[in-house]
Amino acid sequence: MNVAVDAMGGDRAPEVVVQGAVQAAKDWGIGITLVGNRGMLEDRMGPSPADLPIRVHHCEEAVSMEDRPFRSVRQKKDSSIRVAFELCKRGEADAVVSAGNSGATLAAAILTMGRIEGIERPALPGIFPGETGNILLIDVGANVDCRPVHLFQFGVMAHAFACACLGMEDPKIGLLNIGEEGSKGNEQVRIAHDLFRRSRFNFIGNIEGRDLFSGQAQIIVCDGFVGNVVLKMSEGIADALSEMVRKELIGSLAEDAVTSILQRAYERLKNKLDYAEYGGGAPILGVKGVGVVCHGGSSVKAIKNAIKMAETFVRLNIQEHLSLHLKEYDVPLTE
Amino acid sequence: MNVAVDAMGGDRAPEVVVQGAVQAAKDWGIGITLVGNRGMLEDRMGPSPADLPIRVHHCEEAVSMEDRPFRSVRQKKDSSIRVAFELCKRGEADAVVSAGNSGATLAAAILTMGRIEGIERPALPGIFPGETGNILLIDVGANVDCRPVHLFQFGVMAHAFACACLGMEDPKIGLLNIGEEGSKGNEQVRIAHDLFRRSRFNFIGNIEGRDLFSGQAQIIVCDGFVGNVVLKMSEGIADALSEMVRKELIGSLAEDAVTSILQRAYERLKNKLDYAEYGGGAPILGVKGVGVVCHGGSSVKAIKNAIKMAETFVRLNIQEHLSLHLKEYDVPLTE
Repeated sequence: MNVAVDAMGGDRAPEVVVQGAVQAAKDWGIGITLVGNRGMLEDRMGPSPADLPIRVHHCEEAVSMEDRPFRSVRQKKDSSIRVAFELCKRGEADAVVSAGNSGATLAAAILTMGRIEGIERPALPGIFPGETGNILLIDVGANVDCRPVHLFQFGVMAHAFACACLGMEDPKIGLLNIGEEGSKGNEQVRIAHDLFRRSRFNFIGNIEGRDLFSGQAQIIVCDGFVGNVVLKMSEGIADALSEMVRKELIGSLAEDAVTSILQRAYERLKNKLDYAEYGGGAPILGVKGVGVVCHGGSSVKAIKNAIKMAETFVRLNIQEHLSLHLKEYDVPLTE
Repeated sequence: MNVAVDAMGGDRAPEVVVQGAVQAAKDWGIGITLVGNRGMLEDRMGPSPADLPIRVHHCEEAVSMEDRPFRSVRQKKDSSIRVAFELCKRGEADAVVSAGNSGATLAAAILTMGRIEGIERPALPGIFPGETGNILLIDVGANVDCRPVHLFQFGVMAHAFACACLGMEDPKIGLLNIGEEGSKGNEQVRIAHDLFRRSRFNFIGNIEGRDLFSGQAQIIVCDGFVGNVVLKMSEGIADALSEMVRKELIGSLAEDAVTSILQRAYERLKNKLDYAEYGGGAPILGVKGVGVVCHGGSSVKAIKNAIKMAETFVRLNIQEHLSLHLKEYDVPLTE
């Protein structure tokens, strides 16, 4: 098992990424290929990396957070994210982990590994640790102009992933909409509602914004524009909450002991809302291979967890589950 | 001044609506026409309503929360929401307040009063009491399939409203999107970005989900599908937080003093997120008249505040400000 890690991607790359990779190799013995500038990486790997199952694959370029996804991946042939997926394609690695430009990671996965047959639009789920168990929101930003059949395919992919990798059994699927009735919403969602209703899924109908994290559905389908707004809004609220509690504590308490107890209570609360803490990343679903996208601001621990996640997804063979699901649930390919 | 109140609309109508109206008449002397079933309403008006500037206008029908907006308003000619707007049209009332089916309220406003010249899609703003002042999100559910020019018009209407009724001066306008750059997002939003960029507005560019309530922009434009998800999500998160705080406290703390501190922090956050607390309602922008839409679950106080709001909007003459704005900001009428 070898995980190719895009060492140049992320807000605090390569430092944090290298540290996360070294820890994953040290603690779990996971084989790692750090892809990036050899000089920069070896400087940061610390003492005795020779004892660890970790190697560096040199490349000259990197895709920045501002780069246009498909264009940059096509043009920067020696960029860390593209090279990482090419190692997979050639069988020199089994999965890719990146905290870089998520659009570019998706683009590199599609251009290098290709789509699974029957999937028109690979997608990214956000995994939220809800009150009553994990909740998957799909798509959280890969696809901003979707047709109804794409929404249906997002549901199929999330279902396969949830069953194969998260241990869910026949999870309930909901469609994010602005009312409970099937007649509500825009045209895209109304048609998708019909596709789900006629399918063999455990489809519970529409889910409104207020019930996103209530646990009524384990899988919630939406287009990537809405999903990304929801994802980032939940991050923003977690941050705002922390800041308010901090201010409130400064204003009203002096005792260190009590302060630290409160702080811990709020950290736990924040973790419940903050998808970024969960497992470290989210898998790209619908490509022929395993790619895990991490938050740009990932911590050392999040990178380490994402590498573990990637290793698990390879072992569980998501791709095969997904292909079986596509057959089992009669996915419409054209409209 | 007379405000027509849809006494049959709302989760707890007519009780709560009648009480809110009676209080507004009693405390502020605002003239009120309660529109609904005379028998039901007079039963609930309590003692000595004769001393108050309040009267009942009888009608036989009501639109339910499940009814389809335009169809129900067209078919139910004697429904309280339609009759309320007809009183306005005939000059027997100056504004309408409803906590009923918001789609039907919008439909009744459009069908009865008509659109302001130049406005293709009347819209509903959500008013959030942000950390650094009010934040308007527009549209929050009136329009689920928008073209770019509609988004631009939402910005114009919110700007006119913010300046005329909320005392803002040259408020900053942002476009809700999934990245900071103008090239991000779906086609609808990319074209709208250009329209705003070329306008004379104080346009600050894209706003991501995490910065919705940060105060970077006072007006945030989005289509009604996304806006409604955001609105309801913010309600849902406020409720979920309450529950989480309660559970965390049970698990970690018993001291009453600390509990109350956390409770205050939560109340502040909830107020920041919960648009329903603000003023009681939101105005329908873009129709020839004043209509205020309240949350279905509005309290007596919220109904009372919404009536005050409607009275204020009539006095400030939103409609005229809006027409002037349409000329001043060169609104494109066709694409």
